[in-house]
Amino acid sequence: MKKWKSRGIRVERELARKLWSKGFAVVRGPASGARAKHLYYPDLVAFYKGRIFVFEVKYTSRSNNITLRTSQLKKLKEFKNRSGGEAYIAVKQPGRDWVLINLDDIRYSNDTKYVTIKLENHISLEYFINTVTNIELGEYIEEKN
Amino acid sequence: MKKWKSRGIRVERELARKLWSKGFAVVRGPASGARAKHLYYPDLVAFYKGRIFVFEVKYTSRSNNITLRTSQLKKLKEFKNRSGGEAYIAVKQPGRDWVLINLDDIRYSNDTKYVTIKLENHISLEYFINTVTNIELGEYIEEKN
Repeated sequence: MKKWKSRGIRVERELARKLWSKGFAVVRGPASGARAKHLYYPDLVAFYKGRIFVFEVKYTSRSNNITLRTSQLKKLKEFKNRSGGEAYIAVKQPGRDWVLINLDDIRYSNDTKYVTIKLENHISLEYFINTVTNIELGEYIEEKN
Repeated sequence: MKKWKSRGIRVERELARKLWSKGFAVVRGPASGARAKHLYYPDLVAFYKGRIFVFEVKYTSRSNNITLRTSQLKKLKEFKNRSGGEAYIAVKQPGRDWVLINLDDIRYSNDTKYVTIKLENHISLEYFINTVTNIELGEYIEEKN
């Protein structure tokens, strides 16, 4: 159990470093233990020139899907709404690329405790980064012309 | 030393709770020890409907001024620039209101190691919150009178 948790922290750090290296500012929340006692904090928040991206980070060895607590999704949703940003579940699997699931694409009913999401049809980290950082480039080019 | 540090964490939490209670989303960074090993993380980042506010939190018993490392200010400045937000030094003194110093108002030369800032003439936390959360400035002034 402890090993599993430290693996989660390791992939969180990996995601933080990748985003930072691409020009994002990044904050990782306090460890889960500290978190539970106080306010809700997401695992990671990244910023890029005024845009806000809120992440819950998941590590799983299942190949096709991930199961999430709806209570966590609700907290993430409130954080997203307060912040005015976008929210994602960032899923890391051993030997595979990150998959990013936009919170807006997750459908669940309020009376279920868990929701299982297929990982196919969601975007990769690379796609996410390119999209966010290229929009700026597009605007820049427009401004120059 | 340890007592001093835990006091810093306590005031950080206090600031996080105050901002949350006023409708902000808030993330506290990992503890300083964990931070130093990896990327730079500010003490706290708050969001309000798409706006980003980056904070370094200071606890001091000095009454009139605070001394900061210019190296920390430079890191905060880089984070601010990447994020596209605003950055503040949030100063808590025993028995007094929070004072918020906008990073843009701090002048220092690159070859000095420390900078000392007078706390007078900087805004209070209440003023900051009221301004951000769209209470009309006129209303605020009326309330004070």
